[in-house]
Amino acid sequence: MRCDLIAYTPEPELTVAAAARLCYAAIGAQQLQERMERPDVERLIRRLSDSGHWSPFEHASFTFAVEGVSRSLTHQLVRHRIASYSQQSQRYVSEKNFAFIIPPTIAEVPGALAEFERVMAETTAAYERLSAMGIPREDARYVLPNACETKIVITMNAHGLLNFFAHRTCQRAQWEIRDLALKMLTLVKTVAPLLFEKAGPSCETEGVCREGSHGCGRLV
Amino acid sequence: MRCDLIAYTPEPELTVAAAARLCYAAIGAQQLQERMERPDVERLIRRLSDSGHWSPFEHASFTFAVEGVSRSLTHQLVRHRIASYSQQSQRYVSEKNFAFIIPPTIAEVPGALAEFERVMAETTAAYERLSAMGIPREDARYVLPNACETKIVITMNAHGLLNFFAHRTCQRAQWEIRDLALKMLTLVKTVAPLLFEKAGPSCETEGVCREGSHGCGRLV
Amino acid sequence: MRCDLIAYTPEPELTVAAAARLCYAAIGAQQLQERMERPDVERLIRRLSDSGHWSPFEHASFTFAVEGVSRSLTHQLVRHRIASYSQQSQRYVSEKNFAFIIPPTIAEVPGALAEFERVMAETTAAYERLSAMGIPREDARYVLPNACETKIVITMNAHGLLNFFAHRTCQRAQWEIRDLALKMLTLVKTVAPLLFEKAGPSCETEGVCREGSHGCGRLV
Amino acid sequence: MRCDLIAYTPEPELTVAAAARLCYAAIGAQQLQERMERPDVERLIRRLSDSGHWSPFEHASFTFAVEGVSRSLTHQLVRHRIASYSQQSQRYVSEKNFAFIIPPTIAEVPGALAEFERVMAETTAAYERLSAMGIPREDARYVLPNACETKIVITMNAHGLLNFFAHRTCQRAQWEIRDLALKMLTLVKTVAPLLFEKAGPSCETEGVCREGSHGCGRLV
Repeated sequence: MRCDLIAYTPEPELTVAAAARLCYAAIGAQQLQERMERPDVERLIRRLSDSGHWSPFEHASFTFAVEGVSRSLTHQLVRHRIASYSQQSQRYVSEKNFAFIIPPTIAEVPGALAEFERVMAETTAAYERLSAMGIPREDARYVLPNACETKIVITMNAHGLLNFFAHRTCQRAQWEIRDLALKMLTLVKTVAPLLFEKAGPSCETEGVCREGSHGCGRLV
Repeated sequence: MRCDLIAYTPEPELTVAAAARLCYAAIGAQQLQERMERPDVERLIRRLSDSGHWSPFEHASFTFAVEGVSRSLTHQLVRHRIASYSQQSQRYVSEKNFAFIIPPTIAEVPGALAEFERVMAETTAAYERLSAMGIPREDARYVLPNACETKIVITMNAHGLLNFFAHRTCQRAQWEIRDLALKMLTLVKTVAPLLFEKAGPSCETEGVCREGSHGCGRLV
Repeated sequence: MRCDLIAYTPEPELTVAAAARLCYAAIGAQQLQERMERPDVERLIRRLSDSGHWSPFEHASFTFAVEGVSRSLTHQLVRHRIASYSQQSQRYVSEKNFAFIIPPTIAEVPGALAEFERVMAETTAAYERLSAMGIPREDARYVLPNACETKIVITMNAHGLLNFFAHRTCQRAQWEIRDLALKMLTLVKTVAPLLFEKAGPSCETEGVCREGSHGCGRLV
Repeated sequence: MRCDLIAYTPEPELTVAAAARLCYAAIGAQQLQERMERPDVERLIRRLSDSGHWSPFEHASFTFAVEGVSRSLTHQLVRHRIASYSQQSQRYVSEKNFAFIIPPTIAEVPGALAEFERVMAETTAAYERLSAMGIPREDARYVLPNACETKIVITMNAHGLLNFFAHRTCQRAQWEIRDLALKMLTLVKTVAPLLFEKAGPSCETEGVCREGSHGCGRLV
């Protein structure tokens, strides 16, 4: 898996702080663009996150390019609706010799790995044979596995990301999307540490587990 | 593919008309619930659709249960973000002896069909062998193909459905999601013909094709 | 303030439970429509809310007709974006002799009430004089106060409603929108008690206050 | 009215083009960040807009600081739900000596203007008297008019903006929000001319009027 932060709102923390300031102070648009001192930005953003006032966080957007992930992952990912996606199309792009993602539980068991690789080879061959018979890509792809590698560009704002991280960095999240979430979190923390100071599963951020009887037991 | 309309806002046309009436007339909530005569409902809804004032259409929701569709279809489907979905999980539900969707272009070519069915059998066997080795479902499913059958419950409001139909009943839409869209359209037309009087591809509803050089040529 | 529940998904609890069941069990669309016993519905919905798995709650929608509320309220209300609204238009509907909402803190102080009513009368007169001079409604309305009565139709699904109730039934919410939220909650509890069993401010539902130093002190 | 573009995705056109390229070409994330030549960017973005494939436009976000607008305008504005807003609060910020927006139709008629200014002065005085009596701001504001000046920070992505411009640059849109839309359009055209090449009312962009019998007559 590779995940790059390819674009984001410049000075994301300052942008969020400026928007929040407008809500609560009798200032104008001009002052809004004046420099805020770092301690003021910090105090303001911490006040927002302490009071769960996340809407100003939406003014900062982050765009990621992701590759080396499975279509299992992206099918889950795109269920997050407050986000924008552009994904490599299996209708238009050929999947000859497609790459595939191997789950760690399979990689660790030699017999399972051999079985897995055998099926991938079979599937690759079948996709090519169907293509050679004139079956269009959009139909030949029906034989392609969930493991098939895909690429996707994701844009989420900081509010959406916090929600995404709350669900997908949880120990109970599926391993591949959790890996992605942790990588995305590392990247955004580098450029906007304050905005993501409280990012993570709810056991860490609120001391509450929402997995019920399926929880990992960490909070017991 | 099977698609059932399992629930919807009662009297969807009357609900939309009542909401619209409130916008433009000095009436109260009580009058809102009084009977509107059918010709009044018709006139009002046609005025809304003639003027592209779709927001009152959002007060009518429709819930479908769909089965016998592929995960290719659902991966596309859930990209429609103004909607709600509940899908059968491959993490929790075993896919032993899974059913699969055969694209018509493959079904028509005996050699292709044989190849396709062979891969499905191989994949089924591999999934079972991996399961037998103790690989958890959420990882064994990485070998499952796009063709794998899935089930999903979909809720969209009439505004969202009109947008969905505009994109997915187009001749250029992928065949399987187009089939689903046409089935859904038939179902909602039965219970709310006025709301969906103008549903369909933009060539039919507006005399405009938005597929550019990829268009089907119908409007030339 | 008057708030009526004018439409909702029939059998909202059964619809949610059926959708949830599809996610976790190897059942088909036909079985989905078979009767579920009440204890099964209860167990399933409680499991969903215990584990914070709210998405199946989105298949149940509720439509309210509201009148006798101020435009202060609706300006706040429509900030809830996962919802649909149809509001009486001040561009198209005349506001001659408009009704107005009196805040309780003003109603309790005779001097304040007199002042308030005097301004309402002045404003009414000014609106009429501007109209008589030929000023169009959409511009004459610029003199109308926040207190001006408006009417609105609201549709939210049960997931959206739970979020709305979490914010707006809090003691710290503005009094008028809190009144509305409490009325809406009473209405939906009548028809779908299970879905809204855990509705309310986070201090009640999770034992957590998110108002920070602005909290009401109840959880200290 | 003052409208400033205070932040936006750097190189918005390149970001959109890179995301779109990933959908249709067998390239990886690394190549995605390599320079695309300007003619390639132009060709790709025009192909997207010709085919109505707007989703890659969502990867470019734009943040505006707006002041000198009325609460009539913002009440309409925030009905656009695929957007983020931070607005100056009348609950927390005092409106003593508030500024107000004068509709041109009123400014042009001396008698109307005098009437309008008289009401604004009355309202200002009433707000101050109520405040002096100890009425909290959140209730004293019920006397404040729609004309009352407000400030708001808006973030929309390019797809959302195109939809906003389609509705709000139309001759039939309310004058104040149309002014704002035209100012926003001028600003984004400066930094991303390609993305907004086809922005405007549907009569200009598609040769179609959706106002029905309320149309301005331009397309007859």
